[in-house]
Amino acid sequence: MPRSAPARAPITSPAAATVFTTVLTQGPVSRVDVARRTGLSSAAVTKAARPFIEAGYLEELASEERTGPGAGRPANPLAIRSDREYFVGVKITADDLIGVVTDLRAGIQTSRHHPLRDHDVEHVVAALADLVGELLDEGYRDRAYSLGVAISGDVDRETGLVRYSPFLGWRDVPLAELLDEATGLKTTLENDVKALAVAEQWFGEGVGASSFALVTVGTGIGSALVVNGRLVSGAHGVAGEIGHVPISADGPVCHCGGTGCVEAIASTEAILAAAKEAAGEPGLTMDDAVARARGGDESLREVFAGAGHAIGLGLAALVNLFGPERVVVSGEGVATYDLFEDQIRRTFAVQAFGSAGRCGLVIRPLPFEEWARGAAAVAVQGLFVPDRL
Amino acid sequence: MPRSAPARAPITSPAAATVFTTVLTQGPVSRVDVARRTGLSSAAVTKAARPFIEAGYLEELASEERTGPGAGRPANPLAIRSDREYFVGVKITADDLIGVVTDLRAGIQTSRHHPLRDHDVEHVVAALADLVGELLDEGYRDRAYSLGVAISGDVDRETGLVRYSPFLGWRDVPLAELLDEATGLKTTLENDVKALAVAEQWFGEGVGASSFALVTVGTGIGSALVVNGRLVSGAHGVAGEIGHVPISADGPVCHCGGTGCVEAIASTEAILAAAKEAAGEPGLTMDDAVARARGGDESLREVFAGAGHAIGLGLAALVNLFGPERVVVSGEGVATYDLFEDQIRRTFAVQAFGSAGRCGLVIRPLPFEEWARGAAAVAVQGLFVPDRL
Ligand SMILES: [Zn+2]
Ligand SMILES: [Zn+2]
Repeated sequence: MPRSAPARAPITSPAAATVFTTVLTQGPVSRVDVARRTGLSSAAVTKAARPFIEAGYLEELASEERTGPGAGRPANPLAIRSDREYFVGVKITADDLIGVVTDLRAGIQTSRHHPLRDHDVEHVVAALADLVGELLDEGYRDRAYSLGVAISGDVDRETGLVRYSPFLGWRDVPLAELLDEATGLKTTLENDVKALAVAEQWFGEGVGASSFALVTVGTGIGSALVVNGRLVSGAHGVAGEIGHVPISADGPVCHCGGTGCVEAIASTEAILAAAKEAAGEPGLTMDDAVARARGGDESLREVFAGAGHAIGLGLAALVNLFGPERVVVSGEGVATYDLFEDQIRRTFAVQAFGSAGRCGLVIRPLPFEEWARGAAAVAVQGLFVPDRL
Repeated sequence: MPRSAPARAPITSPAAATVFTTVLTQGPVSRVDVARRTGLSSAAVTKAARPFIEAGYLEELASEERTGPGAGRPANPLAIRSDREYFVGVKITADDLIGVVTDLRAGIQTSRHHPLRDHDVEHVVAALADLVGELLDEGYRDRAYSLGVAISGDVDRETGLVRYSPFLGWRDVPLAELLDEATGLKTTLENDVKALAVAEQWFGEGVGASSFALVTVGTGIGSALVVNGRLVSGAHGVAGEIGHVPISADGPVCHCGGTGCVEAIASTEAILAAAKEAAGEPGLTMDDAVARARGGDESLREVFAGAGHAIGLGLAALVNLFGPERVVVSGEGVATYDLFEDQIRRTFAVQAFGSAGRCGLVIRPLPFEEWARGAAAVAVQGLFVPDRL
């Protein structure tokens, strides 16, 4: 079914992009405040906002507030019309595809999971197109033009290439192009942790912070750093590898070849291995370990505290080096946060240097839909980016 | 002796600043290349360069190279006239003042030391003004207008305030203002490690690198990080504290309250303490320890290798998190670099994650004049910065 050319957000100039981004991420906000925050003149803000209002992306809220006593026009704040456009976000894991539809502010409207039976490129593309089709069929087809896809590994957002995905066994797969064709949506790829950071930077704890870090804890331990408003990408393609920060000179050997890495102590796998050893039960499951630690088993409680300590040291290294305004720690191990959190905070408080410790530390679970929401946020950001190289 | 208003570098627009900076840090360079590197048009480059040529800051080099076969004007490269203006740089330590005069490219012309007998503000200001006077009297008085001062601790460059200097016992001293009056030069203050990083960024290993780190090793261990061309300053005023990155969970307690910090293992003081213990001689001096380690004393060699290992782990933490293009490690412990360097490189190679290890690692001594040169580089940068707040 061919679609007519969509009436997209009219982002036609840097000023238009700046004004729209400001209302999108910080609105509702008055024109005067937009001008103050962006350095544009009020006239320029009004001029830039008009096409967005006409296209239905922005609206003026009613307001009784006036700029001065007895005088002037009401300072009607500008607000985003979140339901003007929808975005599809999909996270690819080794075992399944998780998809969501979000509105313009990355608010989840609906979500679906598909098991992934095969890592063959064709199969993944077809399964992903099916999932997108089902999501769009829930009533979003006529207002969704963009797809964001999040995947762990080395991903080149600009060219839409999966350079290396260890768990899919892929190298140099032009996934965005394949998905453009298979779904009819404009596809943007991003590394999964970076995608989460985008959602945080635009619609979460990172709003208004010029620097912050997002740390994910689970099977792997990684992070994305934003400094001076920009994601740190690493001159040689590596950055944010908090999982491979060495915090214990005589700790366990890590799969990376290093010793005493945070990940070698605090990844899900490392915790389970330590729990089995502490309990003397090679068959112990994670669920059992969690249940017994909660029940008061001291040796198992120490295993979780040890992981929390390692994470706290990694966070201190990060914060002492780059002094972010805020750090969000999030992870799949939802169930075990209660066992970690105290120790993470205690270690961090001792080891953060001086006022670096004043950085806000948010620790919270990471439902699987959040990864897909991050992918959708990348698609929202795609509004502002020229087409793929 | 009143001076007439100096004919300073005519930096009157962002384009003028961009063109002058490009030639200053990357020249000699043709107008075409300046245009290519800055995104300005060739006409804009030519227009921006003219006032600098007239004021004697830039010159056109002779060149036989032509832009195309048989055609066009010769592509005369633009070059800086380094001796058009001189800059005074002073580093304040607990024991002395080190001063230099440099040219526009931070090339040292002359240097002087003064012992510092007293940490009283008035005394330091008077001693510093004396030192500056002596330096200027060597023939630089009529072409020097700016003073850069480097000092360890919490320094606010924009307001010229020493917020906190632990070793001088100062809090909130408006040092730049006091030195403006005492010296007649326009004074810019900067934290000493950041000042070294400025020299590196503009005139050293950092030229052309969008990200790099400068690490100093000595009594303290610190660093300055440049990401996307900008110094990372930390949302709460702390950044680059590589000395307080925890790399040994059961290592020695650090004066910061943490455990196993790099500085608790690899600072000059920590090394000497470990050497005394290894030798079983409470009276051992650093010179002796170095001499004996060089002579083959295994237990002392291990002390230095242990410090190198700690530094290598700290560097790996930094590089795995930031992925800089280059890292410069420099320090006062000139004499001992041969005892560290191998181990630093070995540990770094093992612990750097994937391609993060491709970052260039430069390890070199840090003569005391270098600190003062960093201060002078800050003064050079002051050409481009509006007057103090
Ligand atoms: Zn590792
Ligand atoms: Zn410390």
